[in-house]
Amino acid sequence: MDGEVVQFEYGDKMNLVNKLLKGDKVSLARAISKVENGEGSHILEALFPYAGQAYYIGITGPPGAGKSTLVDRLTNQLVDGGKRVGVIAVDPTSPFSGGALLGDRIRMSNLSGRDDVFIRSMASRGSLGGLARATKDVALCLDAFGMNYIMVETVGVGQVELEIADVCDTTIVVLVPESGDAIQVMKAGLLEIADIIVVNKADREGADRMVTELQFTSEFRCRKRKWGYPILKTIATQNKGIDELNSTIGSHRDYLRGSGGLEGGRRERIRRRITELIEEKVKERVQDNVLEEGKLEETVEGVYTKKLNLFRVVDDLVKKVIG
Amino acid sequence: MDGEVVQFEYGDKMNLVNKLLKGDKVSLARAISKVENGEGSHILEALFPYAGQAYYIGITGPPGAGKSTLVDRLTNQLVDGGKRVGVIAVDPTSPFSGGALLGDRIRMSNLSGRDDVFIRSMASRGSLGGLARATKDVALCLDAFGMNYIMVETVGVGQVELEIADVCDTTIVVLVPESGDAIQVMKAGLLEIADIIVVNKADREGADRMVTELQFTSEFRCRKRKWGYPILKTIATQNKGIDELNSTIGSHRDYLRGSGGLEGGRRERIRRRITELIEEKVKERVQDNVLEEGKLEETVEGVYTKKLNLFRVVDDLVKKVIG
Repeated sequence: MDGEVVQFEYGDKMNLVNKLLKGDKVSLARAISKVENGEGSHILEALFPYAGQAYYIGITGPPGAGKSTLVDRLTNQLVDGGKRVGVIAVDPTSPFSGGALLGDRIRMSNLSGRDDVFIRSMASRGSLGGLARATKDVALCLDAFGMNYIMVETVGVGQVELEIADVCDTTIVVLVPESGDAIQVMKAGLLEIADIIVVNKADREGADRMVTELQFTSEFRCRKRKWGYPILKTIATQNKGIDELNSTIGSHRDYLRGSGGLEGGRRERIRRRITELIEEKVKERVQDNVLEEGKLEETVEGVYTKKLNLFRVVDDLVKKVIG
Repeated sequence: MDGEVVQFEYGDKMNLVNKLLKGDKVSLARAISKVENGEGSHILEALFPYAGQAYYIGITGPPGAGKSTLVDRLTNQLVDGGKRVGVIAVDPTSPFSGGALLGDRIRMSNLSGRDDVFIRSMASRGSLGGLARATKDVALCLDAFGMNYIMVETVGVGQVELEIADVCDTTIVVLVPESGDAIQVMKAGLLEIADIIVVNKADREGADRMVTELQFTSEFRCRKRKWGYPILKTIATQNKGIDELNSTIGSHRDYLRGSGGLEGGRRERIRRRITELIEEKVKERVQDNVLEEGKLEETVEGVYTKKLNLFRVVDDLVKKVIG
């Protein structure tokens, strides 16, 4: 899909949107490609009214924790239960490799064959900020397409991952006995974003000790949290513990619905999204108006030679755009 | 310094700047606190003409690689050689812990006693984007103060670390035999940002194998790079290999000067800094003008209930700000 060159007229775009809304997966893939490349603003606007039905699940954890396999198994189970699932696998680890190292995604290709599943791998091509934004846009497409669940898989807890966790209704942190002790996990900020903690590869040495440590740490740190800290053991490769994980996700969803947290969280996300999008548009405008005038080089030269004061120059440039 | 409440008048600020420029460390600390809290725009503008003399060294690597000790030893050696050194230790790992886990910094307090050293620990308090910005601002203060070297120590390679590596003339990646194999290092994007690779704790098992692997990988990946990939072994706790590291930094500096890379890099950084600062100011302006009107809640409600289209609303709001 990625390499395809499609000439779009406005009418074509609407055609694409209509076909997508009627359940055409090829149109979905094409719309996502457009959106990923930042050419999808009309598509997003047209799809927006149809989104908002899906439940968002974030899966994060260190490399090698078995996240892909877990997502694979969980998706299979949801689809077996009659649900439609979109999976977005985000790999921001190296902004340089351009996603070439997403090889382990191949494992999931068997899922792609299923009718009610759509999988998209995304890697950073340029800015990391753009990746979080693109992830949200792609999720919107999947949501409008009619997916019941959208799973977003990320590595670790960099800024992108935190931003993405922010978008999800339920965030699952996946660890393995080798992930280190509870203190390290806490240090990495993983406990704070987790709604559910999974110790995967639970047949390995140290799994029980890790669960005990996590229980102790989470009780100590998060006494006031009403939802608590479910800590589950899974062996994803053997499909063990997936049932329980699935039902714990269900419990969390029920909890969110009952407590008003689901609605509150989604309103909060809209609030942030409005701010983000405005900032982005204004940024584009500033870049178009000020920086692309060819005057940037002159300014850089002036600042480098200290003829201009960096901070005064910036003030002047901003005034030019927004009076 | 952090807890101090100082009432500033404009005259006070200039006084602070003058004292800083005369070499007063207390004023430096106060200026840095102001700058860190985002209240230092006048200070930065006043200091800007005096900055640009320092050489920037970035030190990054996984937790537990012994970065602090290495920075400690390297700083001591530079100071013994008559240089003045500023150290900024950045810990962005947890945006939640607020820097409470920076305990290992305590080890470096013996350095603080030296007249020609100034150390600042920084942790993310809120946004991660703000941390990279604050680091650059604090570095500017140290630079204007007259430091010959500014060392910026960060953990891992998240977005903040990449941004910070971007600011440095020489970037050193510190690994230990336990850091995993060369593929993992490459996957983490560490090779791409490294000017010098250090295998620390080189008395441990696997050190030689790691060096060999890194040599092989770097040769394979980076044939075209003129500077090459010096891979050094150190045992920082025993002060071993620090001489060689120091002289390799010198060689890299000479290489950059000879090839025009130093000037080119710094111009490039000014270019990016101008863009960044403009974006930031625009963001502030958007928040002040559009979003704080109290109308935001109304808009959120409309978008949540689908009475308003998110993307159309954003377009309208942007038009309000920039006609």
